[in-house]
Formats: sequence, structure tokens, C-alpha cells
Amino acid sequence: MQGLIEKLIQRNNTKIFMFVLDGVGGLPVKGKTELEAAHTPNLDELARRSATGLHIPVEYGITPGSGPGHLGIFGYNPQDWEIGRGVLEALGLGIELTDRDVAIRCNYATIQEGLVKDRRAGRIPTEKNRALTARLQEEIRQIDEAEIIFSPGMEHRFAVVLRFPEPLEPDSDMVNDTDPQKVGKPPLKPEPANHQSERVARIAEKLIKKAAEILRDEEPANYILLRGISQVPRIPTIEQRFGLRALAIAVYPMYRGLARLIGMDTPPVNGDIKEEVAFLRENLQEYDFFFVHIKKVDSYGEDGNFEAKSRKIEEFDAVLPEILSLKPDVLIVTGDHSTPALMKEHSWHPVPVLIHAPYVLGGLSNGFSERECLKGELGIFHAYHILPIALANTGRLKKFGA
Amino acid sequence: MQGLIEKLIQRNNTKIFMFVLDGVGGLPVKGKTELEAAHTPNLDELARRSATGLHIPVEYGITPGSGPGHLGIFGYNPQDWEIGRGVLEALGLGIELTDRDVAIRCNYATIQEGLVKDRRAGRIPTEKNRALTARLQEEIRQIDEAEIIFSPGMEHRFAVVLRFPEPLEPDSDMVNDTDPQKVGKPPLKPEPANHQSERVARIAEKLIKKAAEILRDEEPANYILLRGISQVPRIPTIEQRFGLRALAIAVYPMYRGLARLIGMDTPPVNGDIKEEVAFLRENLQEYDFFFVHIKKVDSYGEDGNFEAKSRKIEEFDAVLPEILSLKPDVLIVTGDHSTPALMKEHSWHPVPVLIHAPYVLGGLSNGFSERECLKGELGIFHAYHILPIALANTGRLKKFGA
Repeated sequence: MQGLIEKLIQRNNTKIFMFVLDGVGGLPVKGKTELEAAHTPNLDELARRSATGLHIPVEYGITPGSGPGHLGIFGYNPQDWEIGRGVLEALGLGIELTDRDVAIRCNYATIQEGLVKDRRAGRIPTEKNRALTARLQEEIRQIDEAEIIFSPGMEHRFAVVLRFPEPLEPDSDMVNDTDPQKVGKPPLKPEPANHQSERVARIAEKLIKKAAEILRDEEPANYILLRGISQVPRIPTIEQRFGLRALAIAVYPMYRGLARLIGMDTPPVNGDIKEEVAFLRENLQEYDFFFVHIKKVDSYGEDGNFEAKSRKIEEFDAVLPEILSLKPDVLIVTGDHSTPALMKEHSWHPVPVLIHAPYVLGGLSNGFSERECLKGELGIFHAYHILPIALANTGRLKKFGA
Repeated sequence: MQGLIEKLIQRNNTKIFMFVLDGVGGLPVKGKTELEAAHTPNLDELARRSATGLHIPVEYGITPGSGPGHLGIFGYNPQDWEIGRGVLEALGLGIELTDRDVAIRCNYATIQEGLVKDRRAGRIPTEKNRALTARLQEEIRQIDEAEIIFSPGMEHRFAVVLRFPEPLEPDSDMVNDTDPQKVGKPPLKPEPANHQSERVARIAEKLIKKAAEILRDEEPANYILLRGISQVPRIPTIEQRFGLRALAIAVYPMYRGLARLIGMDTPPVNGDIKEEVAFLRENLQEYDFFFVHIKKVDSYGEDGNFEAKSRKIEEFDAVLPEILSLKPDVLIVTGDHSTPALMKEHSWHPVPVLIHAPYVLGGLSNGFSERECLKGELGIFHAYHILPIALANTGRLKKFGA
């Protein structure tokens, strides 16, 4: 299927907006889901004149992480490309990764007598993280043949990139996490799973040792734990595949990182929904596709805060008229997965999707919710079909066959 | 996809019940299907608070036999593995098959002047079958290099296994049925379709000849017809794939045989629905997954007995409160295929399915029937997705990706 789409692509000046309410899908509490409980007159009115349905992010029963969840709605079958957690983190922190790189998601941790006492070093302030990471970078610039690049994240998190002199063989990143996942245990040693990954394991081990020496008098961040050691997957860009010059508008680093992986431009953005829409307005002329990420819907879902999740959806509803005033040719509203407040975590449930476009049936859903979208013309379908439908509605897909 | 599920499996102590009303799907007679005509207050109430939908056993338009029908609902794509009828029959009769075996489903038949007079020898009593089969076993223990193992079934049916000294090459079972399918015709000769199957054809021919000599003075069972000559497919077990210790509760041999093929425990069970549920209750602690097979729904469908099929469904409905009192974490009610009384045979129609589980929307179907399930949150989907949804609802599937 996806090879077919690529062959039929033609470019034009239409604009596609994709608003991703992260984790928007939910489950009933006292009979209503978060979307059903939210007062969303604008979304409901739009749903009545849009194509609606439910998308399956990966497959029936599969709960996606943020990586697979976003790949799907960007038109990529998430089963075809695997994105390591280290890669996502590094991209989100603004590091431009190459095929010579191995990225690692690190935690500052507290170690005592060889045992992990706190896997997150008491969630040290981001400022402290920056100071420590700057110091590590100053003292560790090279280990054996690899350049070492540090980048601080939020609280206890930071990323490290091992940059080798030449492109890496496949599976050079097959090295285990060193986080033992429980306190009171010693950190694990990075072990290579194959021949190619031996050099990465060797350098990771030296890195941990050097960092421990530098941090030994720190309190509480006296150690580092490594997770998600990974290379960049070779994914074709969204411009290569779909002919779309794409802009990601996302406040959180990980989502910009993910978008950058498929070649979207990902300038930093601050604020919340209103600021994101203002940013979209300012950059409207330069791009074809606009991915706007709204994180907090998922965050409240993960907190189990049903009410706050509903309120956040209402905030989006309030901004919807302004979004429509920008006159996108296609406006998609959906989520990358469900995060029912009832479950306090990502789930496998199909996600409501609304495609406001010129060529739809409409008149099937009486609002934007799981149960109303089930009545819609899109049915239940895989997430990677959303983008082709948008492309078709903007005249960006030629006819197949004579 | 299925490789993905296997990678995400984690075990726990939850219980999944799958009640299979064999052939439950139907078609309208006087405006109502068998399910719609049945008075099923318990099923209807349960459907209102469950995930509902319709499953496609194999593919649109494909009418499944019992083998593919059950593989699908057990989470296996039936197009990936072919199960010969001989294999099913032998397994159902309690024969433990190996990779050295070819299994054959046989009928006692009546032959007169070289022509088949009755393909089932007047459906001789099972007792008579046992006596004849014991005699054949006594006189035929070996043919050429193959050990010969007989096992009596019900009425005119029995199974024969040809056990070779070493594992068989693939396609060693490519030998035609000898049943001419019509009376008044001579039985067919077993012919090999390729080089590998020559030895099986040779031994089958000798077997038929020897059996005819032994039975020549019998009346009416003076001959044997061979069908479904087949080797065991190499299917991973349900425990290997899904981490489920599984118990099959089925009265009829074929369904136990099928369950054994994917590694379920299959102790013999007597009685009907009530006895099956009692058996489930007694064995509740030992297993994770319980397949309970209710045969008669299909039997009445095949007889064209619309009323009796509806009554049998009502019998199940009456036992449902007792099943729910066992507090399964997930309860699935469905069929392996449709058997509309209108058609008197298996059909290709999607089959109603109800998944009673902790994390569902519910409130979409106002009863358990083909037309009500169509309104449900599962939509129309392939049967092999049922089990992953149950696994997700019991916390047996980890998140995919970061």
C-alpha cells in the first residue's frame, strides 16, 4: 500500500493541519468518557460535518508508546520502523543525529555502597542537571574512537550521543539498559548482544566509570544510569514519501524529536494551545503540513485526572474557531493513542478521529467522542490510512491505474 | 503482527473464558435470525455492558471448516496453518501424533460388486465399530515400514495412523481421498501427487486391500474408505505464543483434538453445557485460558432446525449467570463460524462476538445478535484479533515502543 501512495503523490499549495490531542481516547467513568463528559460545542458541530471514525494506532490489542503512536498518524506503519528511546530523547533535545551515532537516554541517580538508592536522584532541579551535564561535557569529550555529546533534559534526565568516525553497522546498538529498575540493586553492566555492539558496550562502560569519578562527591546525583541505547532507524522523510514540507509545533522535546526523525522542521515553541496556534498562524505560508501536538491531555490521563483531561479538551474546543479561521484545506483532529484516566496509562483502544475536508459524507456522528465516531464514515481503521485520506482530499494523490 | 504480540507477552494470574457456540451465526427466517428469535435476557444484558462486534473467521466470503474456524478464535491466522481432517480426527480420538505420522479419517462402508452401496455402512452402532476396529488392529499391525494404529470413533467413523520409522518430509501426505462421494461408483485408488507421497499411497493401498479381506463376510461394514490423509502441521502452542496454560472443555473428540494441536490440555468431558461449566469450575485454578465448546448449536443449524438451534442458545443463556459467578477477568462468547439453519451448512458470514472485560466502552449493542453486534465497538474484524484484545484487557501485553 505505502509504495503505491508514494507513486501517486503530486504537490500543490494546499494546507493540511493535524491536531494531536495526545492520549485523547478514553473509557467511561460514571457512564461517560472524557470526551463525552467535556463540553465541546465547536468540536461536536465540526464532527457533524466531517468524516469521523476510530483509528487503531498499531494493531488490535497493542498499546503504543509515543513513537509508534505518532508514526502511525504521520502515515507510517509503526510495525515497519522501530525507534529507540535514546534516539527519541536525543532528537527531542535538539541533537541532530546521524548514521554514525548511538543515542542513550540517561538518568542521574544516587548510588550508595554499590547499590542504587534512587533511580532518579530525587528528581534534581533542571538547573542542577544543566550544571552537572556541562561539567561532564567539559571533562568527557572523547572516549576511545567516539566523540561524546551530552545534552541536559528535564529534572534528572539527560541524553548522551556516542559519535563514531564512520557509519555504524546495523545492530551496533544491541546493548542492555544499566538501570536495574529497582532500588537496592547494583546497576547492570552494559553487555553487547552481538559482535557489532561490542564497541558501544565498551565505550558505555568507560563512560559510566568516568562519570562516576566526576560525580563522586555530588549529592544526590552521584551516578548515571543508561537506557534505550539506540541507533537512528532509516526512515524516509515525510517530504520524500508524501511530498509534504512539514512543520511540527510541539512544546515537549520528545515530540519535536519524533517529528524531526521523519524530516519535519521542529523549531522550539513555548506555551500551550493558544501559543501553538499563534505559531501556526505565523508560519502558515512556509509549509504544507502542520503537526500540532497538545501534550497535557495525555498527562492528565496518566495522572488519572478525568476532570482535568476533560477540561483540557474543552480548552482545545475553545480555540477551534480560530484554527478554522485559518482555512486549512484539511483539518485532522485525533490522538496518537488512548490514555483513559480510568487506566492511568496508554491503552490499546481505538482513537476518535475527525477529518474536516471538502469531500466527505458527514452527518453521521452527532459529536466528537468514541461512541459517536464509531458511527462515522471512516469506520475502524489503521492510523496510517489517515494521511492518505487527507492527501486525497487536497488533490495530492493522482488516480491509480487507467 | 503476530510476531509483535509474542514479543509483548507477559504472564499473570488472570482468567480468560472463551465460550464457543459452534456455528452460532445465522440468517433471518421470517425476519429474525436464530439469535434474534432466541429469548436470551442474560446474554442481552451482558452485551449492553461488553465490547461487541462481528468476527470474520478466515476472510470475506470464505466458509471455514472446524479447523480454520477454531484456529482463528484461538489467535492463529488460519491461512498460516493447514490442518488435515485425518489429523483432527486422530487427535480427537486421543492419539498423540508425531512428525513420523500420517493420519487418515476412515469410514466403514458397504461395497457390492465393486461399487460403493453405502458410504457409511448404514451408520453402524459405535459398539459394532469398536469390535470391527479391534479386529483390524489385531490382524494389521505393520505394513511394510509403517506401524499401523487404529482407533474407533462414533458410528461408522474410525481413524488410522501410519507411523513411519523416521520423520516425514513435507508433503508426504499428498494422497487423494478414496471416497467417491456418491453411491454407485467404485472407490478411488489412493494416488500420490508427488514423489514424497508415494510411500503413503503404497501403504494406503495395501491397507485397503487387507481390510477388505478381513471384513469381506461382514454385513453391512465390508469395506473402508479413506479421507483427509494428512500430516501434523507444525504449529507453536498457545503457551509458546501467548503464555497461556489452556484447558479445552469439549465433549466431541474433534474439538479436543484441535485444541490439543496447539497444546491445550484436553481431558475427556461428558454431558452438555451444564456439565461443561461444572468441569470448568473444578479446574479453575490450574489454567489461564478456558475454551468451552458447545457443539449442538451447530448440529441443529446443519439439520436446518431453526427452532432447536434457538432453544440451544437459550440453554446457554440460562447457564450464563453461573459462568459469570466464576468471575472471569475476560469472558468471550462467540462461535467458530456461522451455520444458518436456512443454509443447513457452515457459511462465510461474520460471527457475533461479545468480550466482557474491564476496559470497554459498552452501551452500544442492545442485545447479542448479528445486527446488534454490528453496532458495537469492535466493528467487523478478523477472528485472530479476539485473543489479543482479551490479552490486553488482562494486562498480559506490554506496551509497544517508547
